[in-house]
Amino acid sequence: MAEFTFFFNPMSRAQIARWALHEVSADYEPVLVPYGEDKPAEFLAANAMAKIPTIIHHAQGGDKVVTECAAICHYLAEATGSSLLPRPDEVADYFRWLLFGAGPLEQAIISHAMGWEAKDAQQEMMLGFGSYERTMDALDSWLQGRDFICGTRFTMVDVYVGSQVDWGLAFGTMPDRPAFQAYAGRLRARAAYAEAKAIDNALIAQMKQAAN
Amino acid sequence: MAEFTFFFNPMSRAQIARWALHEVSADYEPVLVPYGEDKPAEFLAANAMAKIPTIIHHAQGGDKVVTECAAICHYLAEATGSSLLPRPDEVADYFRWLLFGAGPLEQAIISHAMGWEAKDAQQEMMLGFGSYERTMDALDSWLQGRDFICGTRFTMVDVYVGSQVDWGLAFGTMPDRPAFQAYAGRLRARAAYAEAKAIDNALIAQMKQAAN
Repeated sequence: MAEFTFFFNPMSRAQIARWALHEVSADYEPVLVPYGEDKPAEFLAANAMAKIPTIIHHAQGGDKVVTECAAICHYLAEATGSSLLPRPDEVADYFRWLLFGAGPLEQAIISHAMGWEAKDAQQEMMLGFGSYERTMDALDSWLQGRDFICGTRFTMVDVYVGSQVDWGLAFGTMPDRPAFQAYAGRLRARAAYAEAKAIDNALIAQMKQAAN
Repeated sequence: MAEFTFFFNPMSRAQIARWALHEVSADYEPVLVPYGEDKPAEFLAANAMAKIPTIIHHAQGGDKVVTECAAICHYLAEATGSSLLPRPDEVADYFRWLLFGAGPLEQAIISHAMGWEAKDAQQEMMLGFGSYERTMDALDSWLQGRDFICGTRFTMVDVYVGSQVDWGLAFGTMPDRPAFQAYAGRLRARAAYAEAKAIDNALIAQMKQAAN
């Protein structure tokens, strides 16, 4: 049995988790979860919300289920003792931006794409991200003069935050700014990124062909 | 100089970070950041988004800034080598639910409070949390038969997720369910919770008195 079971659909955020799996050279068994059809029972038992990606780590002490893209990325680094875990002096930046990505950045992108906006200063304060523009400015300014989130070294937080930037630029849900383009370019040069995307893109092409 | 500088306002999510500071018995200097007035320069230099809470860890290798409530909670446990960090067999649950709290749970609560809803299945899929009801059900079901997120032991993830439940019940932004009430009750029994709330509540009372 593979060490990890990976429930995914290639046309989803599961692409982020696949990239993470390849970054740590994980031994994993992919299980494709179709949209709008019967889902595998093993998947529903692991995650009642039926959200992909979900991984099951068949660990020595028993199976561990992990959901949420950012948690999966970080967990994979922990479970495999990866060098992509933050070093002591990177811990602050790593977790600050992992949570910035999973919270304000995700919320700002989605709300903006949905056309949802705070009506007044009171509502803006309720929103953890304040405003879309300020959220983009915060990340943009952090990336000025840094190759990766933690400085010069690529770590697992770049898989998660970087995927949001990569997708944001591809789908136009993030503004096209030089710092975002340069960062995305560095990430796309990763061997594990290319491996993972090749698998998902081939599966998407197959699914489109089957649908025709 | 104290080990941590803590930028806060008592009437904000900063209450979560103060509870975390007390859970790890941190040596911290609180700096109150007023709303709608000039902000301390040290604060703006640390966090251009001017979001509270923000902490600066005056670490041996240099100052480290941490923002985002969930990141602050986890970072404080890391920086102080706290027993509230997850043990190896708790790592999966700990990060899964830390990120569930910072992502889907936060988004579901805020969107619901704002009256924002997905218009169709396509939009629901874009939302990391799917729907408010399913998000509440997921947490409710996890808390069945568990005292804390990681099982029987209180860890730092409970400060973050637990604060959302505590506030959600207090402000009516989460449904009043037995599992949420029981969990909140266990958290309110923590000495550090009581210490931190006493400080913030006294400051709020002072501010209200000054405004009259």
